[in-house]
Amino acid sequence: MDNLALCEANNVPLTPVTFLKRASECYPNRTSIIYGQTRFTWPQTYDRCCRLAASLLSLNISQNDVVSILAPNVPAMYEMHFGVPMTGAVLNPINTRLNAKTIAIILRHAQPKILFVDHEFAPLTQEVLQLLPFDNSQPRPLIIFINEIDSTKKPSSTDLDYEGLIQRGEPTLSSSASIFHVRNENDPISLNYTSGTTADPKGVVISHRGAYLSTLSAIMGWEMSASPVYLWTLPMFHGNGWTHTWAVAARGGTNVCMRQLTAPEIFKNIDLHGVTHMSCVPTVFRILLEGGRTDQSHRSPPVQVLTGGSSPPAALLEKVQKLGFEVMHGYGLTEATGPVLFCEWKEEWNSLPEHEQMQLKARQGVWNITLAEVDVKNTETQESVPRDGKTMGEIIIKGNSVMKGYLKNPKATSEALKHGRLNTGDLGVIHPDGHIEIKDRSKDIIISGGENISSIEVEKVLYENQKVLEAAVVAMPHPLWGETPCAFVVLRKGEEKLVTIKERDLINYCRENMPHFMCPRKVVFIQEELPKNSNGKILKSKLRELAKALVVDGDDVGTKKVEQRVVDHVKSRL
Amino acid sequence: MDNLALCEANNVPLTPVTFLKRASECYPNRTSIIYGQTRFTWPQTYDRCCRLAASLLSLNISQNDVVSILAPNVPAMYEMHFGVPMTGAVLNPINTRLNAKTIAIILRHAQPKILFVDHEFAPLTQEVLQLLPFDNSQPRPLIIFINEIDSTKKPSSTDLDYEGLIQRGEPTLSSSASIFHVRNENDPISLNYTSGTTADPKGVVISHRGAYLSTLSAIMGWEMSASPVYLWTLPMFHGNGWTHTWAVAARGGTNVCMRQLTAPEIFKNIDLHGVTHMSCVPTVFRILLEGGRTDQSHRSPPVQVLTGGSSPPAALLEKVQKLGFEVMHGYGLTEATGPVLFCEWKEEWNSLPEHEQMQLKARQGVWNITLAEVDVKNTETQESVPRDGKTMGEIIIKGNSVMKGYLKNPKATSEALKHGRLNTGDLGVIHPDGHIEIKDRSKDIIISGGENISSIEVEKVLYENQKVLEAAVVAMPHPLWGETPCAFVVLRKGEEKLVTIKERDLINYCRENMPHFMCPRKVVFIQEELPKNSNGKILKSKLRELAKALVVDGDDVGTKKVEQRVVDHVKSRL
Repeated sequence: MDNLALCEANNVPLTPVTFLKRASECYPNRTSIIYGQTRFTWPQTYDRCCRLAASLLSLNISQNDVVSILAPNVPAMYEMHFGVPMTGAVLNPINTRLNAKTIAIILRHAQPKILFVDHEFAPLTQEVLQLLPFDNSQPRPLIIFINEIDSTKKPSSTDLDYEGLIQRGEPTLSSSASIFHVRNENDPISLNYTSGTTADPKGVVISHRGAYLSTLSAIMGWEMSASPVYLWTLPMFHGNGWTHTWAVAARGGTNVCMRQLTAPEIFKNIDLHGVTHMSCVPTVFRILLEGGRTDQSHRSPPVQVLTGGSSPPAALLEKVQKLGFEVMHGYGLTEATGPVLFCEWKEEWNSLPEHEQMQLKARQGVWNITLAEVDVKNTETQESVPRDGKTMGEIIIKGNSVMKGYLKNPKATSEALKHGRLNTGDLGVIHPDGHIEIKDRSKDIIISGGENISSIEVEKVLYENQKVLEAAVVAMPHPLWGETPCAFVVLRKGEEKLVTIKERDLINYCRENMPHFMCPRKVVFIQEELPKNSNGKILKSKLRELAKALVVDGDDVGTKKVEQRVVDHVKSRL
Repeated sequence: MDNLALCEANNVPLTPVTFLKRASECYPNRTSIIYGQTRFTWPQTYDRCCRLAASLLSLNISQNDVVSILAPNVPAMYEMHFGVPMTGAVLNPINTRLNAKTIAIILRHAQPKILFVDHEFAPLTQEVLQLLPFDNSQPRPLIIFINEIDSTKKPSSTDLDYEGLIQRGEPTLSSSASIFHVRNENDPISLNYTSGTTADPKGVVISHRGAYLSTLSAIMGWEMSASPVYLWTLPMFHGNGWTHTWAVAARGGTNVCMRQLTAPEIFKNIDLHGVTHMSCVPTVFRILLEGGRTDQSHRSPPVQVLTGGSSPPAALLEKVQKLGFEVMHGYGLTEATGPVLFCEWKEEWNSLPEHEQMQLKARQGVWNITLAEVDVKNTETQESVPRDGKTMGEIIIKGNSVMKGYLKNPKATSEALKHGRLNTGDLGVIHPDGHIEIKDRSKDIIISGGENISSIEVEKVLYENQKVLEAAVVAMPHPLWGETPCAFVVLRKGEEKLVTIKERDLINYCRENMPHFMCPRKVVFIQEELPKNSNGKILKSKLRELAKALVVDGDDVGTKKVEQRVVDHVKSRL
């Protein structure tokens, strides 16, 4: 047995880049990308990515160099997910919703050799560059603009634009194996910064091997069958689009790219191109629900939607299904290269009433096939919690898709990976049927009179009220219990604004639907929307900070002030 | 980037054994195995496999030791696919249809420390052992019998039987990580002997990594969604059941095990347990077609059937679909750890007439997601053939699922893996849509007047004739053209036996449906069935040998003699 050494035939590094070559050979006639009037086939996309890689190599990009990109879901963003890793360089997709200051922090930390910028973000980039005093110790990255792909305008500010790079990529190089520089599957493929709600963003480094395995799990966990038509409602900069960038190539699907995320654009693309799949954070549901469509539950087959990022309450899922979407709920994190849990449907749930089905769907589910372990541990004893659906603990993960670490941050890396596993900081329970349910981020838990209250549990009940559009529950100070829940609520449009007296009604509604100690003692009504971070997650840290000023059974003036501060905060971020 | 070393959290060997642990945690209530009256859940199967592993370790089984098994598709056979590799040992499932002499050759070559024997094969094993002069240089393997699982009889000939081993497996060991001995994912997991139609069987060594990736590809290529109910109509000894042994665990499915492969048993299990998936060689279709069922095409959903091993003609697929089976065609080989090509369905085929659909289904399809390359190369120039659906070449494969090599056979290993790829010896074409179609084994091709004739192409046309049940076409000598096609045909039951004159009718039918140079010059009618190897593949090498005695337009006496020799050969193997 020992004499059988590995050889060229059976020893190939695992990298999602191979999915692209395969797509060009197995799906030669299938459309790879749709964007406005632009269409590419898989052989064309493969050719363009090879040309991009050849051009990058000619610009002296090499192993472990960082190549950053600031772009919406345009074809260039998709192509860079293959063209950059092909060269051995590391892709760094930057969240376009960040402000100039945060982007400057990221660039200073990541030190990219090249920064690709979509034309839409040219002014923002100007602002960023002014914040960065480049010197010899940190040379200025080469800026390459991405112009509108079907535009006939030539770029004025620079000779090099993205399309120029594609065109000058040596065809002889692109047709040979010499551009393929992945030597070790454990080498980094992407550098993804966390949203950084609390501190400076951290740079998560993931590997080719981890991305490859996560992509396969994403396909199986979501049951993404061959040749999906995938609508990009999730930003590709968001954890490489939860690995769906690579998954669509692996399945020979069609990427429908969109610049703007509006309800008319989404529904138009679905109808026009026969979209079968899309993934998004739950805030997109809000966009869909306000898009003016009526009941589409007859639509067959429905669009398969994967959601995650924060827990969508059962009541919200129910409303979205009526618009012709079949929602699957998942849980993932940048540090685990995307998908970790999928709420896999069980045959026996088919006979349950719809409302109960939605409650089961709101759980995060079972762990993905290529991980080695996902468990819920008591944070003090480090022992697994009983599988009773009640005992909370921290979710921990082990497997090849766990990040290599945080770039240039050994302290945070060893903290996150201590005990030989990824410690997520998310609290959850395991149900007797094996499904895991997230209860809260450890910092979002409310401790009232020694009892742990899951803010998500309280929010769930609030969302079940037909008048509630958005809800977030955080701790507010309480003279006796230490903390007590406070709810920030946005009401549905078209409903009359509730007056003060109705706060009591909503609290009473809560008292009828949950244990009294869990009920919010205060409801702050906000118009329009709650403050969110750049990934659309509600900024509970901000709300918690503001809630400190509130007093239980306090005066209206204080509450009004907090209301105003929330509105101001939302405005300041737009 | 370079400072981020791998650690315990993100560096776990890839092995299909992890699928079992995951199944026990993610699918705790689901039935893992059904066999007669026996039922297990996934936690029970996990526990039994851990106990088996603990017992094997206590019997001094260690890294790279071979553990052989001679058993039908019973629970023990399934459990050994996990329990043996857990210990670091190598599983060697032996084809139960082989004769004593061939099994003795395998045992002498594999040198197992333990041989597990199902009670059904006790007499065969006696015969085998008499052929093996064990001595000090090769100690006799420990024989452990597998009795009927629900039997109350205690084994008489030995103290150790399989269930005893399970029971004595230390529970403390089974609950700890100490039984899990997979250190390197490139270590061998299984030793599978090729059927050896032409020479001594060769021992194919496959790795944990290759098996893991092949299993994932098998799931995706066949679209095996969560919780399948899988009926074992494919022997697990056949390339580890094309990796479906591990795939069913990965998807939290239910294994329906069967000892006997008869039509009533198959249909009974399908109806009783709601079977969703099964895989089989095309000879099983013959069993199904003769099983007396009438039209079941209304059955919804149909049973998903994966077939391969030899090419099922379109006409045969059409008949099987009518019995309530949805057939997908694939291509794989032991040397590539199972599945290589899957005939992935294309949306645009839906609108074609059924017969055309079946013709497209009879192609082998696109390559599996985890391979690095599958191509068709000109055997002389080593260049890829044009993708025209016409130019034949040899199918070559590159990827982590390619075998480590043949055990103790460096010459055959380097021959198979030369040019840095697996050279399959199978001839095929690539269609413009990317689908690969196998045309023939290189040794089965018929060369007539310098023209290559694919025996499979001729067989396809014969199968389209409603009277034909089985057909095999081989070369016979021709004074002018060197070789010419000769057909061996079994007619459907219930039809009258064709008399000599009808040979001409069948040849005329061929002349109407294919180029004349491809038509058989001779048809030999065989009653009952054609000779097959232990995996159910028609033994063309035998037919070719017999066809040498035939003369074009020769006398009936010579033909009768050959007919008799075929019948004798089939009988001698029963």
